Amino acid sequence: MLVRVRPSHALIEPAKEPISQDPQRGGLLEIRVLTIPAKGHKLNGMKREPFFQRLAKAQERNQSLLCVGLDPDPDKLPAPFKRGGIQRVARFNQAIIKATADLVSAYKPNWAFYEALGLEGMRVLEKTLEAVPRHVPVIADAKRGDIGNTAESYARAIFEVWGADAVTLSPYMGLDTLEPFLAYEDRAAYVLCLTSNPGAEDFELPGLMYLRVASALGQHDTRGNIGLVVGATQLGRIQEVRKAAPNLPFLIPGVGTQGGSARAAVQEAWGDRPGSVLVNVSRSVLYASSGNDFAEAARAAADNFRKELQGYIPREKG
Amino acid sequence: MLVRVRPSHALIEPAKEPISQDPQRGGLLEIRVLTIPAKGHKLNGMKREPFFQRLAKAQERNQSLLCVGLDPDPDKLPAPFKRGGIQRVARFNQAIIKATADLVSAYKPNWAFYEALGLEGMRVLEKTLEAVPRHVPVIADAKRGDIGNTAESYARAIFEVWGADAVTLSPYMGLDTLEPFLAYEDRAAYVLCLTSNPGAEDFELPGLMYLRVASALGQHDTRGNIGLVVGATQLGRIQEVRKAAPNLPFLIPGVGTQGGSARAAVQEAWGDRPGSVLVNVSRSVLYASSGNDFAEAARAAADNFRKELQGYIPREKG
Repeated sequence: MLVRVRPSHALIEPAKEPISQDPQRGGLLEIRVLTIPAKGHKLNGMKREPFFQRLAKAQERNQSLLCVGLDPDPDKLPAPFKRGGIQRVARFNQAIIKATADLVSAYKPNWAFYEALGLEGMRVLEKTLEAVPRHVPVIADAKRGDIGNTAESYARAIFEVWGADAVTLSPYMGLDTLEPFLAYEDRAAYVLCLTSNPGAEDFELPGLMYLRVASALGQHDTRGNIGLVVGATQLGRIQEVRKAAPNLPFLIPGVGTQGGSARAAVQEAWGDRPGSVLVNVSRSVLYASSGNDFAEAARAAADNFRKELQGYIPREKG
Repeated sequence: MLVRVRPSHALIEPAKEPISQDPQRGGLLEIRVLTIPAKGHKLNGMKREPFFQRLAKAQERNQSLLCVGLDPDPDKLPAPFKRGGIQRVARFNQAIIKATADLVSAYKPNWAFYEALGLEGMRVLEKTLEAVPRHVPVIADAKRGDIGNTAESYARAIFEVWGADAVTLSPYMGLDTLEPFLAYEDRAAYVLCLTSNPGAEDFELPGLMYLRVASALGQHDTRGNIGLVVGATQLGRIQEVRKAAPNLPFLIPGVGTQGGSARAAVQEAWGDRPGSVLVNVSRSVLYASSGNDFAEAARAAADNFRKELQGYIPREKG
């Protein structure tokens, strides 16, 4: 039996079906060689249900449009995690996940917070991802964006090394830079469109760049795996983006600490497609209490956001 | 003596001067707490000479406008590195650096290629950075871009954890997202302006977004530590960017495998400021030969690029 192996360096997983049946060769079996970040990391090569279907199922199951951002700052951790090595960050994340997993429809770890902690931080990320239940999708908030062969490497890192279900990307360099991520048909990419920060006025708003991005991505979404990032502080403009890209799901940050209106965001963003609205909250859940009751407080905050968001779903559409 | 310590998790380095002389307290000494990615990594907290001065010195010393991109793909490594664990990538990079360090003015490792190799890849990156001589600046090609508190984490990762001298950033989310990087006054940020890939036509060119970016960054450069990324394939437009941002140094990829003209790029981009032009070549140097002579071939290729680029420096200005 011949095998086709990409010269890599990690675990080997057989494909479910032979990729060639050449009788001369007796059949050619594809072997996928996966890059594994560290011993014991779970295999991430199995094809999954399409991301937005998984998201919609998780939203239905937990009756929740809420995504919790896992952006741990070691300086802000509550009382039980004030001291000790950097792996206390992983224990904090594990406690947050345990306290909220039945109230959210996704988690969104922001890569920056882990990278800032060095290699140990990447082990924190690994432990964090392992703590997320299989039925709750993970969005890698990494905002990558680079030309073709480099984008392929980033896609491999996010989807194969880390096994994330979706990723955030920057559109600046163009559609060809998104393609290596979109080629993973079972995963998804949320592309930056109109963000919640003041700097949105510098390059996103002038010339209606954000609508150009929305429209181009709506047309480019042949595999049904593109979403947009639209900030909750951009009231009035969220509905413009919805008109420019009627079918794309939105990931909406900016609620909570950043002050965006959850009601307007959900109502302006609502669309027909499953998973059309996902609202991210980070600090207001993670740091709901700085005391020993941090997990109960995080759970209560998440449940309040969950109920509030459910209440804003348009009746005739929900 | 009181010390002010950010609750972090790594080495401690005393500041050179006290930051307060309150006689009641007997003096307050600032202590910087650095995040160190792994045992033995060099300290990166010392303030450096401003980046573009360091770059100009390296360009003068080696008579070179050439930056070599350290973007190692394990599948493409030459004969001596075809087999073995992933650390063979570090050995390859070390050999390339050894063969070219007196011919270049900077190295530009692209983070994607290391991230794609998992945690082991970050150790490869660590060994690669350690192999670069102190007088040759390192540009972290990471193309990051995120809102304030997240950008702070990315800046800490790139400049403190990894100790890079400069970084590439995406402008999409606005000037406030660049600020946490620019606050490191001794480092620099090359911001994406007009890139060498076909997708530049999607969002960079329409509405002359690239000139808006160039102009805004030219005005924003109060610390003298902003540069622009301008692709060598964009002939005719490089001089437009130069007019829009007369004082910003350019990092120019797209020469070599991507087919951009080095002559036109250097001549259109040339400016008065030290380090105004830096031309990056990756694959044409790294993979100049797939045989055992890879290092000699890389050296010869780098020297050819170096000489060629020197020949294009405008006489009256150079």
